[in-house]
This record gives sequence, C-alpha cells and structure tokens, in this order.
Amino acid sequence: MKQTAVLAIDLGGTKAAFAVINEEGERLMSSKLLLEDRTGADVGNLLVTEIKDILHRVQPEGWSVAAIGIAVPGAVDNGIVWAPGISGWESYPVLAEIQQAVDNIPVVLESDRTCYILGECWMGNAQHCSEAVFLSVGTGIGAGILVNGKVLKGIRDIGGAVGWMVMPSPVTYINTTAVSLEQYASGSGMPLLAAGIERVLRPGGSSKSWSAAELLSAYDSDPVAKATIDQCIQWWGMAVANLVSIFNPEKIILGGGVFGPATRFIPGIRKEAGKWVQPISGKIYCLESSQLGQLAGVYGAAKVALETLIY
Amino acid sequence: MKQTAVLAIDLGGTKAAFAVINEEGERLMSSKLLLEDRTGADVGNLLVTEIKDILHRVQPEGWSVAAIGIAVPGAVDNGIVWAPGISGWESYPVLAEIQQAVDNIPVVLESDRTCYILGECWMGNAQHCSEAVFLSVGTGIGAGILVNGKVLKGIRDIGGAVGWMVMPSPVTYINTTAVSLEQYASGSGMPLLAAGIERVLRPGGSSKSWSAAELLSAYDSDPVAKATIDQCIQWWGMAVANLVSIFNPEKIILGGGVFGPATRFIPGIRKEAGKWVQPISGKIYCLESSQLGQLAGVYGAAKVALETLIY
Repeated sequence: MKQTAVLAIDLGGTKAAFAVINEEGERLMSSKLLLEDRTGADVGNLLVTEIKDILHRVQPEGWSVAAIGIAVPGAVDNGIVWAPGISGWESYPVLAEIQQAVDNIPVVLESDRTCYILGECWMGNAQHCSEAVFLSVGTGIGAGILVNGKVLKGIRDIGGAVGWMVMPSPVTYINTTAVSLEQYASGSGMPLLAAGIERVLRPGGSSKSWSAAELLSAYDSDPVAKATIDQCIQWWGMAVANLVSIFNPEKIILGGGVFGPATRFIPGIRKEAGKWVQPISGKIYCLESSQLGQLAGVYGAAKVALETLIY
Repeated sequence: MKQTAVLAIDLGGTKAAFAVINEEGERLMSSKLLLEDRTGADVGNLLVTEIKDILHRVQPEGWSVAAIGIAVPGAVDNGIVWAPGISGWESYPVLAEIQQAVDNIPVVLESDRTCYILGECWMGNAQHCSEAVFLSVGTGIGAGILVNGKVLKGIRDIGGAVGWMVMPSPVTYINTTAVSLEQYASGSGMPLLAAGIERVLRPGGSSKSWSAAELLSAYDSDPVAKATIDQCIQWWGMAVANLVSIFNPEKIILGGGVFGPATRFIPGIRKEAGKWVQPISGKIYCLESSQLGQLAGVYGAAKVALETLIY
C-alpha cells in the first residue's frame, strides 16, 4: 500500500522550494529552483514542469502525492494570485494552470503569511496555540496571524500586512519623522538605512554599499553595521510591541530571511518592545525564533494540502 | 405572556449606563448613574442597588429580565474584573457579587471593547460584517475587533489595546521622537498636547488649560485648538492605517466620547490614513462613525446577555 503524502511548494520572489511531505510531517524529498529572470507565464511554466517532474520521480518510491499545496508571496482570490514581487503576477491564474497539468490531484493555494503560521502550528513553535503571530522579516515584512485558532486573512486575503505599520524615524539618519516598518527595517530596507548612517558616521568615507546579511555579520566589528542593526532592533521591538498590544498573543515567532542571522538580537528586541507594550500582555508573551526556519512556508503549504484530504 | 428582555449595563470609569432591551433591540427603559467618588466595593454596591431597583421597577411593566449583561472597562477573567480606571478594581469579583444579588438570572461580563463591536454587529454599522474594527477614542483608546466573525480577545481578554501603538511624535511640541497613541491623541491626552502647543504658539500667553471637548469645539476659532486637532487627525489616521493594513477589514468604526464631536474630521483622518496604509486594503475599507454612539456598549452587553439565553 502506498504511503499518502502531499507536494508542498513555497514560491518566493526569487526562488521556489518544493517538498514531498507525509502526514507525519516527514520530508520525503525536496528541491529548490531559482526563478532567475523569469516573469509572468515563465514562472508558471517553471512550476508546472517541476511539479510534473516530481510526480514522475515519486512514482517508483512507494508514495502517492494526494494533494498539492502552494504558498504564494501575496494574496489569493479564487485561484488568482496577486504577487507584487513577481513581475507579471498582478493577477495570475496559477491555480487553473497547475490544476490542468495535474489532472485530478487537488491543488490549493494560500498566501505565504498564512502558510508560515500554519506551518508553525503544525510542526513548529505554535503547536497548541490559538493566539500567535509569525512575524516574517525578509525582503519585505509581513505576518501570519492566528486569532481564536484561525488565520486572520481579512476580506481580500491581504491581512497581516504589518510592514506598513507607521514607525517613528531617526531624523539624524533619515530626513523624515515617520516611516513604514518595511521601509528601513526589512532585508531590502536595511541597506538604505546603512547608507544614511554611512553619510553621518563616515562623511568622507567610501560610502560602502551593504547587504542585509553583511550588516548582520559585521555587527561586532563595524560601527555603521552596529548603528543600523541597533536602529532595526528598536523598530522590530516597536513592531512586536504593537502586535502584542493588539493581539495579546501567547507567542510572537520571528522568521523570514533576516531571522536566522538576527536571532541573537531577540533579547534586545524584547527589551525594546518592553518600553512600549501594554504591560500585562507584555509580561506574558513568548518571543521566539521560528522552529522551522526557511521551511515554515513548505510545512504550511503541506498542512493546507493535507486538509483538503480530510474534507 | 411576558415579553423577554435583558438588562444591559455599560460601566465606565466615571458613570454607569443601564438599559432594558428586548430581543428586537428596543430600549424599554434606561438610566444613568455617576460613580462620583466611589471606588472598590462601593461601585459594586451601586451596581447591585440599581440592578435590584430596575428588576423591581420592570415587574409591573409586562417584561421579564431574562439575563443581565455588563460591559466593563478592562478585562474579564472568570468573573473577576481588572478595570484600571476604577480604583480598587484591580481584581474585583463583580460577577459573584451581582449573581448572588439576582438569584437565578444569568449574569455575563465582557470587556467594553468586545461589547462595542458586538453592539455595532447587532444593531449598528457592522451588521453582516465578519472583519471590522470599532476604534474607541474616549478618555483612553481601545478597539473591539472582529476577525473571521469572532471577537479578538487574546489569551487574557486584553487584546485590542491599540492605545499602546507606537506613533511618531511632533518634536516641536513634545520633546521626544515617539509616543503611544493614547498618550496625546485620547480625551485625556489631548489637553497635554494642547499645553505643549500653547507653549510654542503663545509663549507669553495665559497658557489656557483646555479640555478635549473645548479643543474640538474651538477648532475653527483658535489656532492652538486647530493645531492640536490637526496633529490628532494625523495620529488617528496613522492608527486607522495600521489597523487597516493589519486586519484588511470591511469597516473601521470610530466611536467613544471624542467621536461624536470629532466625526466631522473623518474625511481628514481617511486622507492621513491614505499616506500610510497598505494600498489595496486602503482602497476598500469604509471609515464611519458609530451608528449607536454612546449606546454601543449597552447594545453589546445586551447582545451578550441575549446569547446566554440561546445556549
């Protein structure tokens, strides 16, 4: 008898991760593809080709892929995807395209934010939680949020857009009094903040161009990297404080490409959050890094796929 | 045959509103009491006395009070109330006290934030909404929030504490770069902001002491009142933007003691919110003032009481 498994896909703006996962949460197979310069239908084709290839490869292995779940970087409306990070996916009919290619295997789409928190609920740090937030800090910033045990999606599946939260701005470095969280505290924003800090701290300097990863690893050795990360710690702390005051959750889970490397700053983030948070809620929440790390999306997509089999 | 009705109570920090409301949402009787200098058990006694009096008064009227619902200004944990605005109610056993006084009439407590949004869902502007926020700006600032058709309470019933959201600060008037929303944009905070603005705009002046109501009514005639309200419009706009980005709701409903009089500023608040909000969510939400106004709390408490009769 064949073992039941699902194919889970975490589609991002630059790459797609594929995994075949069984009901116990074991990863039986996985692969990763870079999107490279693909846009629009070429991204759809890439997915279809890899999905067909994986379905072909698993046949002799003794598993059957009973459903396909896909985490997409944006919002889903009736199988149509809006993914601002993929050019040509302003309104892309990916569900129909993939469903047609795989015949009668059920295909289901969810936003990556939804998948992150569902992944942690299933196999990660949010097991047994009914109120929890997965704060994803990567190229952009968003959150998967669980309220009363269900994912907050909003009326158009774009709830959790916490990267748009208004934050106070350090006017010494940035010539404005208010910014959105994502503008300077995300993977794409941190280099812009570092450039502003370079101009102040090393006005005659080489004006080095930093990546977020370089900033994180130079924290102990470079004053610009330190000042940049310290400012981000303030913003991440304020963001955590806002989310804790609003949701009174059991847990805030920090994930995305920046956590990882920024996980060592969690005590500092909690301290900054403590300056702003509603004091009772601020005492009783846990602040943790994602247990699943970069796999939160595929685990969530797998869970969503498995749930299609129950009903 | 007697008509079924419930007794609904909206307890605030300075007064308590009582109403007998039937299943159709008609108010059959109402009264209001000032707490005056009462604290602790004296507030409990006041409630018990008025409740007994109302139960006595309705007897000949042809109604029976089938349940009692109470909106409290804080959080409820197993019948124990934490109400920071009532001295001595840090952990007050109001459910047991009232239940004992009314024998077998069921008594139920909910936070005022929960009651506001449930009231609007039942008889106000949030009918048929599954995703909506009641933003209450009064002495303090809080929100009743509906997600997937259910109230967001958090793990200790203190979710919706949106008055703690971090906001950028106008350093010209306030000597700091960040404040919490409630600090200066609430009924109790607006006078403090006005004092800061007095010092800048009329440095040799009489340094008039403003109330929030005076500021709202002097908007067209006094430059300090205008500058204060204009700054609050920015903060209220940022708060609305944060809530819309996070919840992607159908509606944000503005209520509490300040709206009322501030309802004329809703177009300005929406415009400010538009500078910050996630653009798709920002296009599709409604921003309205409470339809029930100061009655949102009693209507919500009535709805909660009516629901005890169904189950």
